[in-house]
Amino acid sequence: MGIRVAVAGASGYAGGELLRLIAGHPEFDLVAATAHAHAGAPVAAVHPHLAALDITFAATGPDVLSAADLVFLALPHGQSAAVAGQVSAGVKVVDLGADFRLRDAGAWQRYYGGAHAGTWTYGLPELPGARQAIAASTRVANTGCYAATITLALAPLIAAGAVEPDDVVVVAASGTSGAGRSATTRLLATEVMGDLTPYKVGTHQHVPEIKQATGARSLSMTPVLAPMPRGILATVTARPTGDANPRDVLAQAYADEPFVSLLPDGSWPRTAATAGSNACHLQATTDADAGRVIVVSALDNLGKGAAGQAVQCANLMLGLPETAGLGAYGVAP
Amino acid sequence: MGIRVAVAGASGYAGGELLRLIAGHPEFDLVAATAHAHAGAPVAAVHPHLAALDITFAATGPDVLSAADLVFLALPHGQSAAVAGQVSAGVKVVDLGADFRLRDAGAWQRYYGGAHAGTWTYGLPELPGARQAIAASTRVANTGCYAATITLALAPLIAAGAVEPDDVVVVAASGTSGAGRSATTRLLATEVMGDLTPYKVGTHQHVPEIKQATGARSLSMTPVLAPMPRGILATVTARPTGDANPRDVLAQAYADEPFVSLLPDGSWPRTAATAGSNACHLQATTDADAGRVIVVSALDNLGKGAAGQAVQCANLMLGLPETAGLGAYGVAP
Amino acid sequence: MGIRVAVAGASGYAGGELLRLIAGHPEFDLVAATAHAHAGAPVAAVHPHLAALDITFAATGPDVLSAADLVFLALPHGQSAAVAGQVSAGVKVVDLGADFRLRDAGAWQRYYGGAHAGTWTYGLPELPGARQAIAASTRVANTGCYAATITLALAPLIAAGAVEPDDVVVVAASGTSGAGRSATTRLLATEVMGDLTPYKVGTHQHVPEIKQATGARSLSMTPVLAPMPRGILATVTARPTGDANPRDVLAQAYADEPFVSLLPDGSWPRTAATAGSNACHLQATTDADAGRVIVVSALDNLGKGAAGQAVQCANLMLGLPETAGLGAYGVAP
Amino acid sequence: MGIRVAVAGASGYAGGELLRLIAGHPEFDLVAATAHAHAGAPVAAVHPHLAALDITFAATGPDVLSAADLVFLALPHGQSAAVAGQVSAGVKVVDLGADFRLRDAGAWQRYYGGAHAGTWTYGLPELPGARQAIAASTRVANTGCYAATITLALAPLIAAGAVEPDDVVVVAASGTSGAGRSATTRLLATEVMGDLTPYKVGTHQHVPEIKQATGARSLSMTPVLAPMPRGILATVTARPTGDANPRDVLAQAYADEPFVSLLPDGSWPRTAATAGSNACHLQATTDADAGRVIVVSALDNLGKGAAGQAVQCANLMLGLPETAGLGAYGVAP
Repeated sequence: MGIRVAVAGASGYAGGELLRLIAGHPEFDLVAATAHAHAGAPVAAVHPHLAALDITFAATGPDVLSAADLVFLALPHGQSAAVAGQVSAGVKVVDLGADFRLRDAGAWQRYYGGAHAGTWTYGLPELPGARQAIAASTRVANTGCYAATITLALAPLIAAGAVEPDDVVVVAASGTSGAGRSATTRLLATEVMGDLTPYKVGTHQHVPEIKQATGARSLSMTPVLAPMPRGILATVTARPTGDANPRDVLAQAYADEPFVSLLPDGSWPRTAATAGSNACHLQATTDADAGRVIVVSALDNLGKGAAGQAVQCANLMLGLPETAGLGAYGVAP
Repeated sequence: MGIRVAVAGASGYAGGELLRLIAGHPEFDLVAATAHAHAGAPVAAVHPHLAALDITFAATGPDVLSAADLVFLALPHGQSAAVAGQVSAGVKVVDLGADFRLRDAGAWQRYYGGAHAGTWTYGLPELPGARQAIAASTRVANTGCYAATITLALAPLIAAGAVEPDDVVVVAASGTSGAGRSATTRLLATEVMGDLTPYKVGTHQHVPEIKQATGARSLSMTPVLAPMPRGILATVTARPTGDANPRDVLAQAYADEPFVSLLPDGSWPRTAATAGSNACHLQATTDADAGRVIVVSALDNLGKGAAGQAVQCANLMLGLPETAGLGAYGVAP
Repeated sequence: MGIRVAVAGASGYAGGELLRLIAGHPEFDLVAATAHAHAGAPVAAVHPHLAALDITFAATGPDVLSAADLVFLALPHGQSAAVAGQVSAGVKVVDLGADFRLRDAGAWQRYYGGAHAGTWTYGLPELPGARQAIAASTRVANTGCYAATITLALAPLIAAGAVEPDDVVVVAASGTSGAGRSATTRLLATEVMGDLTPYKVGTHQHVPEIKQATGARSLSMTPVLAPMPRGILATVTARPTGDANPRDVLAQAYADEPFVSLLPDGSWPRTAATAGSNACHLQATTDADAGRVIVVSALDNLGKGAAGQAVQCANLMLGLPETAGLGAYGVAP
Repeated sequence: MGIRVAVAGASGYAGGELLRLIAGHPEFDLVAATAHAHAGAPVAAVHPHLAALDITFAATGPDVLSAADLVFLALPHGQSAAVAGQVSAGVKVVDLGADFRLRDAGAWQRYYGGAHAGTWTYGLPELPGARQAIAASTRVANTGCYAATITLALAPLIAAGAVEPDDVVVVAASGTSGAGRSATTRLLATEVMGDLTPYKVGTHQHVPEIKQATGARSLSMTPVLAPMPRGILATVTARPTGDANPRDVLAQAYADEPFVSLLPDGSWPRTAATAGSNACHLQATTDADAGRVIVVSALDNLGKGAAGQAVQCANLMLGLPETAGLGAYGVAP
């Protein structure tokens, strides 16, 4: 008998990716996949790629979740607190939602609205000290997908004093699965294919999370919806503060990381190269004429940006090898 | 020390998928990845999704291949015979090319041209008796990608006498990776995105392979190039010969198969649901008005249509569990 | 002052394409674009490609429509009859819906359900005698998008006795705009990109329309949803009845047609080549081994499959040059 | 008899778009479409969307070009000077290449290499005074595609003193047709679909052109290759210098422009909305927290970014209505 895990909110895209990763994990046994509208339906009816997985969605409730050793919450923003409250204290929880990520209640209210649920250990293992903190926690707040992409690019540079924490400018494009599985006209294939368009310009809710995780003081972020199902490509620029080579800083920060690769000089990240994996690919340069360090970061928003990251955190919390059940190789082309 | 495997022709798309599967296989150790023009280059320079794989392409030659327990040949059509001849007799070989698939030398010459290299055991384990034949072989000819898709849909129905083997009509659309990695204008993204177009209408080289594998006597095949990187969707129609329900025939044929799923009644295959996996999804119906049985089959042309199938055959040849290192869950959405 | 035209149901994709064509038509003045839920909204809020068109959706009603010389109805199936009844008899009407296409009330009820509204002149000008009938009509039922694609490929061959009208087998893939603008999970970009999947296998409602227009007696049709916004590619196969060359038959049928092109021998239709135009591209061959004539037909489902066809019919009904405001050149790549 | 126009380099994507626009232009008669490797081939063999256009590529040479009233040069960078030298002085020329865009010979050599050919009137009619200068010129250097997109967003703000000309940060994603029609692995559909990747980071050759056209003193530009055939989306950020509302500045600059639309407040540009048209869509906001003005600009790289722009310039040079043969409505969805 392996470690008993459950997924609450398993009918969404991140939930589906969690089910796929759990099915391939050497130590995990799935004991429940819960859903709301789809409770009672076969999982394969919602996730056709899991056709060979013969299980049915349960309703989300305290009994089914507390029977697990670890629960992943993949619920809409604002719903995690209520469900987390139903889970026994002895059950570990990784929340893929935003509810417990921010330390600043004012920032929560400004960007998300409603009451602030609290603050859990932030689930980005590659940050300094984070690995140990996650391993010691029973409640972990997984990163946002944009936040993971941008923080991995920016945090070491600010920490090393290689760039100014002011006037960071980010443009980041995401595949459509990041917008979730709710049916809206704006996300129809007919509207998206062949199209690029920005949204939430300067107002995206991951801005305070990125500031908190990187130490950036001012940061302009323009999210763009891109015609692909998965992947985030973030272009992060900041002013250099000295002569530090940004590649050297990143190389040192991630030398021993299994999932973060600084690409060879001259190679730039491609989102497709990270699809289906827990990898993040980075490259950096300094544009001396423009006075900007430019770091480009790519990952799979459902992988290192959501479900893969969550499994990585769960592995740490459970004392398993951090890479168990996770791959660094993308499914490409 | 695990089983030593090598890949000849590892710089193509099927070769890259083999490398990915080998890296995740519990028993395989990659001892060589060979290439022609790219010999000496880092694998990651050609396959950016394998950025974390720190190996270099070797030149294809007898020494490097004969040091393996099993060699995968992922070479252009017509080149396998020469390379296979360089491999020691004691080394097992799975050829992903077409060179050794056909029993009929005349058909070979008509569809491929040049001298017929010979005939190896045909590598489709789900055919009756094939599993045992593959396990007993040291040389196996892997299926073509269209051939696998269409044969899995059609063979059981002809074998059961449920459809006529004459006047089979097939339209099958493939993602672009099936056309390989050579740069041609016709395969440019600019030309392909937003476009559907047929090619090799009535003249595709998989027609004799499909006839051989299914027993079809006459078969019209229209291949279509589709704007997606991976996946084949084949619509196979044939005239019913009696009252047999095609779903029942397929259900019985594949009841115990780990990689072939007959979907629940009313669900139709989606190529995306098989991406990155070794799965084949099937559905069938009878259109009584039109007098046609219609079977639709979907798989990943690089998975069950090439590299996944090859690993499945290799597992059998090596006495490993048939499913080792292979997944039935697609990477979707 | 030009000819006054109105569009009822202008907020859908076919409606949007009508507005675009009308704006570029040398003789048409748009007097009303009506909608239901969007009445009162700026047209550009729904159709961002019409940003430069400064008009507002009106509510659909008798006054606004009867003020026009000609009304296009681009309403959901089943709603045309009620709206058509509100339009003055002196106002010409082209209905892009299915309501008035079928002569057989039983077929209507079987495939669409509900009461049969009646039968109008069928709006495919390239059929023998159709051009004159349309010009003489005040009420015309525009073709379905699949029906136009398949009928243009098949009708001349059956009429010439070059193929049998029995056992016609069609597989036809459509871009997503053919499914309309209603938000459903199945049509989300995340689900569609990278995916091919069949639907309504053997049960599509255009089957009786195609039989009526071509004289086919039995016809198997498998529609496929393709990852592109526009375009239909139909592969139509039938058994040859004699020695007639299908290319010769098509060349003769369409020798003088401005919008239907039989491609040079060896060139096969590409949907992208017809995008945004009123063109239909055809190619044909005989697969002697398989005993099948294969005709492939491509058009833009919103162009020659809907709005372009409707404008072509309107031009005939109004005594204008048939090609006015229409192009034969696709917007490609 | 209309105005006689010729296209040199008509086999590329911009050349094909020119042919399409010329065919629909009310005053233009195409007298020659020249090519190099394709000379002698039917135009439709290279541009399948022009199947109905029954002409053949001529070889590029002085006689064929000097017989025209106006010649469009759509040649690879560096080849325009030689061909332009062959054209009679009385023939007007619009060059879609980069050869004559820059005033600074040093910048030319740094970014393009080779000898600087000279400087022609810069072909962006919406710049102050440009319309008159173009009308008075016989030689016009058309804008680069990125340059047009970014300049339309940025130039009025710098001119009005609303943003600082230093530390401009741009991330701009382009569809693949911008990379041309040469077959390279990197541009294969298999590699591009599902992928976003940057290229020429900080080194793109349009940087000096943008600085020249906008007055920006330092500008960081990260180009991104996006999985779509057409379209550029540029996110342009700069520091505000006062209290000017960037929307007001843009509204005033483009109030009377037929092809540049400042979208209603809250609507952001979508590349698909400009496809196939000569439109540019803009939106702007100020992110006070981040201290950045953000302008987003979208256009069709083959339309307003190349062939449409060139026709607009030609109209001015020929004394025709500036909008002749050009549309402001995109072909969408």
